[in-house]
Amino acid sequence: MTNYILGIDGGGTSCRAAVARPDGIILGRGKSGAANILTDPNNAIISITEAARAAYREAGLDEAGINGASAFLGLAGTNVGDLTRYVHDRLPFQHTDIDSDGLIALQGAIGDEDGAVAILGTGSIYMGRKDNVVRYIGGWGFTVGDLGGGARLGHALLQEALLAHDGVHPRSGVTDAILDEFKGDPRGIVEFARLSKPGDFGRFAPILFDHARRGDAQAIAIVKAGAATVNESLDAIMDLAGAKRLCLLGGLAQIYPEWLSERHRAILVEAEADALTGAVALAAKGYRQRTGAAA
Amino acid sequence: MTNYILGIDGGGTSCRAAVARPDGIILGRGKSGAANILTDPNNAIISITEAARAAYREAGLDEAGINGASAFLGLAGTNVGDLTRYVHDRLPFQHTDIDSDGLIALQGAIGDEDGAVAILGTGSIYMGRKDNVVRYIGGWGFTVGDLGGGARLGHALLQEALLAHDGVHPRSGVTDAILDEFKGDPRGIVEFARLSKPGDFGRFAPILFDHARRGDAQAIAIVKAGAATVNESLDAIMDLAGAKRLCLLGGLAQIYPEWLSERHRAILVEAEADALTGAVALAAKGYRQRTGAAA
Repeated sequence: MTNYILGIDGGGTSCRAAVARPDGIILGRGKSGAANILTDPNNAIISITEAARAAYREAGLDEAGINGASAFLGLAGTNVGDLTRYVHDRLPFQHTDIDSDGLIALQGAIGDEDGAVAILGTGSIYMGRKDNVVRYIGGWGFTVGDLGGGARLGHALLQEALLAHDGVHPRSGVTDAILDEFKGDPRGIVEFARLSKPGDFGRFAPILFDHARRGDAQAIAIVKAGAATVNESLDAIMDLAGAKRLCLLGGLAQIYPEWLSERHRAILVEAEADALTGAVALAAKGYRQRTGAAA
Repeated sequence: MTNYILGIDGGGTSCRAAVARPDGIILGRGKSGAANILTDPNNAIISITEAARAAYREAGLDEAGINGASAFLGLAGTNVGDLTRYVHDRLPFQHTDIDSDGLIALQGAIGDEDGAVAILGTGSIYMGRKDNVVRYIGGWGFTVGDLGGGARLGHALLQEALLAHDGVHPRSGVTDAILDEFKGDPRGIVEFARLSKPGDFGRFAPILFDHARRGDAQAIAIVKAGAATVNESLDAIMDLAGAKRLCLLGGLAQIYPEWLSERHRAILVEAEADALTGAVALAAKGYRQRTGAAA
């Protein structure tokens, strides 16, 4: 019987899986629903298993074979230890490694070399690896973290619109655009903010960057303040991990570079591969280490 | 039958009432439970009525007399029009005026003169009056407003502690104090923040000001950033209301002046009276205007 490996990328929106030969060559991919181990660990187990089965089917393999697989899972929310153990113990694979969604993104982006990765999306998190030691900065979530991420930028824009409405700060195109969206009524902004999740705030980030690029002074101020926090965190992670190259990932990865310090822009590299590919690579590495197979 | 007037100060924690002669001389005071018209308008009606009855009792008057009173109520949450009307129509007084809790605070603090008031407590709101026109700035709540208020300052301190933990910003006495309070575990801060209401964040404001006064660089930076937003809002309200004098109210009123611009410090005055006294004065003013009685 042939042993296969599974790479799995599980997040709050969907779960993706790839089945591969032990040397990492991908044979098939599958996708399923949300795999958020924090909000619904039992459903996450179902989604992970479904995605793995779908990958086996696409590869023309018997689904039941997932019971013999060596799987590496990158999941959001793994810093809550009890739930990780709970999910680990209920998955059907022969061998299961679970780590953060960040780690598989890092592996995918920079492969086996040393380097750093910043994921700039709705939130913000920074990772660096040197000599197989991975360090993390940020990723603390919207309420007291994720500085420079899309949600915090959108939040800052709504706040700026209220300050413009009150005459505390100057009005500009971007604050007028926000006030117009709420029919000129600041209470609409307050009510929206009260009911919003991070992703809802993040929807305003593209408007902000658009106006900033067109020279809107208030938009530029907010983007620059966000970029300053990203620059600081990049300094810290580059220093912590002794990294010489940097890869930006996430929804704002393409939009952010022009706002960052030259010292960071100068060492930017493109991602080698995505997080799912990173998960497969880590599954292959784990398999080799356990079986003593040659790379 | 003698007509009396009622001043009522209703908030989320308690409701206070004072019964007075039509010329504003207070005869008795009463207190009851929460009168939050946003979260529980029916209970607010009960609390307001109970406080009024208690004031009549303390004055040695028949409680039933509240039905003949001219009342002026300053209530939190009056910017939601429908609920204000709902409460207004169900109160037992002969005549009822309802306005914001801010307006009675302004009246109490600066009397009949023109001037501005900043309420710096858990939140922040600014009011100015000139020629009987009252203007408001801020007061939009914790999520996208209340800059410089205790909740936003406490929030900024928790965020700074996470940045210090990550090595993004320097550690200092105040960030160490916060990390110690959470046993050095940043996840404790994140979890606390996730579950916290504005008042919970506000509890960290005194620690922040203590450290700032003792020269802690990180604490000073946060307090100065907060004071900058207060200075800006004060500029705006002084300009809007053409005010020449300024009164600070709220839990941070005594602690903030040393951090504010000299142009604001130079025109600070002490509050003449409290918000309940302001409500009585407005009740008396309304009574005179309706009855044509001499002042």
